[in-house]
Amino acid sequence: MDYGDYLRRYQKRTTKSRHLFLRSQKLFPGGISHNIRYFEPYPFFATGAKSRYLHDADGNRYTDYWMGHWALILGHSPAPVATALARQVKNGTLYGVANDASVALAETIQKIMPVAESMRFCSTGSEATMYAVRLARAKTGRRVIAKAIGGWHGFNTTLMQTVNYPFEADEGPGLVQDEGQHVESIPFNDLEASLKVLENIRDDLACIIIEPFLGGAGCIPPAGGYLKGLQEFARRNDALFILDEIVTGFRLSLKGATKEYGLEPDLFTLGKICGGGMPIGVVCGNKEIMSLADPVSRRDKETRCAIGGGTFSANPATMVAGKATLDFLAKNEKVYGKIDKLGQMARKGLTKIFADAKIPCQVTGTNSLFLTHFAGSRIADATDVATSDRALLAKYHLALMAEHDIFFLPTKMGAMSYAHDESDVKRLLAATESLVESGLFK
Amino acid sequence: MDYGDYLRRYQKRTTKSRHLFLRSQKLFPGGISHNIRYFEPYPFFATGAKSRYLHDADGNRYTDYWMGHWALILGHSPAPVATALARQVKNGTLYGVANDASVALAETIQKIMPVAESMRFCSTGSEATMYAVRLARAKTGRRVIAKAIGGWHGFNTTLMQTVNYPFEADEGPGLVQDEGQHVESIPFNDLEASLKVLENIRDDLACIIIEPFLGGAGCIPPAGGYLKGLQEFARRNDALFILDEIVTGFRLSLKGATKEYGLEPDLFTLGKICGGGMPIGVVCGNKEIMSLADPVSRRDKETRCAIGGGTFSANPATMVAGKATLDFLAKNEKVYGKIDKLGQMARKGLTKIFADAKIPCQVTGTNSLFLTHFAGSRIADATDVATSDRALLAKYHLALMAEHDIFFLPTKMGAMSYAHDESDVKRLLAATESLVESGLFK
Repeated sequence: MDYGDYLRRYQKRTTKSRHLFLRSQKLFPGGISHNIRYFEPYPFFATGAKSRYLHDADGNRYTDYWMGHWALILGHSPAPVATALARQVKNGTLYGVANDASVALAETIQKIMPVAESMRFCSTGSEATMYAVRLARAKTGRRVIAKAIGGWHGFNTTLMQTVNYPFEADEGPGLVQDEGQHVESIPFNDLEASLKVLENIRDDLACIIIEPFLGGAGCIPPAGGYLKGLQEFARRNDALFILDEIVTGFRLSLKGATKEYGLEPDLFTLGKICGGGMPIGVVCGNKEIMSLADPVSRRDKETRCAIGGGTFSANPATMVAGKATLDFLAKNEKVYGKIDKLGQMARKGLTKIFADAKIPCQVTGTNSLFLTHFAGSRIADATDVATSDRALLAKYHLALMAEHDIFFLPTKMGAMSYAHDESDVKRLLAATESLVESGLFK
Repeated sequence: MDYGDYLRRYQKRTTKSRHLFLRSQKLFPGGISHNIRYFEPYPFFATGAKSRYLHDADGNRYTDYWMGHWALILGHSPAPVATALARQVKNGTLYGVANDASVALAETIQKIMPVAESMRFCSTGSEATMYAVRLARAKTGRRVIAKAIGGWHGFNTTLMQTVNYPFEADEGPGLVQDEGQHVESIPFNDLEASLKVLENIRDDLACIIIEPFLGGAGCIPPAGGYLKGLQEFARRNDALFILDEIVTGFRLSLKGATKEYGLEPDLFTLGKICGGGMPIGVVCGNKEIMSLADPVSRRDKETRCAIGGGTFSANPATMVAGKATLDFLAKNEKVYGKIDKLGQMARKGLTKIFADAKIPCQVTGTNSLFLTHFAGSRIADATDVATSDRALLAKYHLALMAEHDIFFLPTKMGAMSYAHDESDVKRLLAATESLVESGLFK
């Protein structure tokens, strides 16, 4: 079977989704409300999700490895979260004032991650990273922000730089150069080259902000010493080291990459998992730096870093969903043993299948995260990912949907959840083998 | 009784909140996760909300006029929304993919507001306005954004300008001048002076973005002809006219200020009400302009305006809560008759009470929105608000809490919901009269 066969099979079993997509095109540019959620020939339309499954409009049930942008570490609507939310939705979802639920979630986070000496809740990861770099500029009085090439920190104007390949080109119309002039990008995993860039900007360097593990850019673990090298440079030059743990926090382990890689960021950002499937972002870290945003002791705007908050900040629905999730994780650290093992099983199994078939392939990842790249040589940075055979990866992911009811958002990293088990991974591996045998990769 | 008496009374009946605030100070800068939610001596901590009431940790029950930053037009957890959410939270809160619920909400919005020819969902108002001005810059190839002095469009870096008094001063450390250099502010309600500012920047003017009704800056309706004058200027000079309807959409009437004031914005933003108490932002308007963000026909980043989306964009929990709210409003347009009448009753009643007592006071607002200002002359712009006796207003609002179980977020605009009734307004007026008699305003 070739790709055309899988495409036709997908279309045949998603006729209701196709109809929804036609309606959607009359509503949204391109028929979608999030760029990366579009894939060819058209995305299926979900109508429900439970445990490890996504259900679509045509009654198909997919084993989900996208898991809500990797946020759903316990699966879709896990019992503790669903129970907490069912209670909360009758009791107010938006108090709009200080509330006990935000204290409870913040204390839970702080207990797990004492390095979160002080924090502020916001509603998206994009807001959290925007606030983090604003705090860094306020703290240092400097302007320049260093980020990794391919590093993804959301759609906020400041950090929307070197996100898509070709990385040296601007990220499209509407972003004016003046707004981006103080962002410099460094090559992930190449410490020597990164330090060279940083040396040139060190006098005006406010911070280095980096994902400990490149997520959106293609599931790339850090090379040994890379993150610590950046951290040391920041320390030596009175700049802040900011770790964007929106993907990795509560994912690589309960304590996240900070602990896993022995780092000491000045600030770090959280999101995804700690919202329990509800909208959240968190900026946290050093108490003294965070205090620059204190609206009580800094009544005068001249002294206060403006990271105020929005309508939905610290809303009780998010707070209880997040707390239910973190409480479960804290009481069941075996979650990590299980999902990490599943991740390893997937990486090993996929690597072997493609190697046996002599299909040039690299499976990257760590812990419960994994991604297949069709490339002959090692994947160490975002350029390696972008220049691999992404079209083939998209075909592979679509064929998994069409023929085997397995869902990866095409070309994106997969994540295990506690709702997955070994039989799922075996099915994924068997499905991949069968696609190899069918000739899809020829 | 003087203010000290009310303060002591507040403290006496909020001992559990005081304890929560002590815990909160160890977690958040200033003990709060949203600047404006702090008030002296410390905010009470909500533990629940239902209908028109907020409940706090000490068992107090407040009649709420803050209503979740004015988002909750049907009150806290109204039955249709609570029912829709109770079903959804068991069935996935974050599919992370295209879904039928987003089509349903978008079609509902488009049916009510056909001027939303095309739209994109995001998770906060701050993201929606950021996307709107980015689209304007992409469309026009120009850089300058004009906003009103005191205009509030969220904490995004670009629009965080001239927000707090004194307006001409920078909005605090961390915001670098290069990022704000292309934002120009115009005096709200002064068309002649506004046009003078605009004339000077017209060659590089990408858009005018404005709230039709200054909300956060102090509940100020537009002067006749002001908004149309700005719209005409934008049209004549090939700039976009963007209406920020995050507060006013579905609030001033089902169709919002666009209809109410006979405007034809190129783009407009929505939020709050259309999320039904769940996190939302929407950028919408002219199809051709919105198509600049189309990820399907514009695969190449050079041609695509980057307003991609975030993890929580179009999540089904928000979608069903929003649709339940808008469906109820569309089927029960009497909602507006009721809440507008309550608003008028409050404005008239408060005006009379303070006039009779010879306390210099202006009550501003329109429809279901209202705010008291202690000032001798007319309130027409954000400076008038900022230079009124805000300290006295804060005292008034605290005394209402302490003595009469009535909640306004101190100094902020109040909003009626469908859950309020005439007896509430009578209570508010009686409470105000009693505070006047007690000597609080002397």
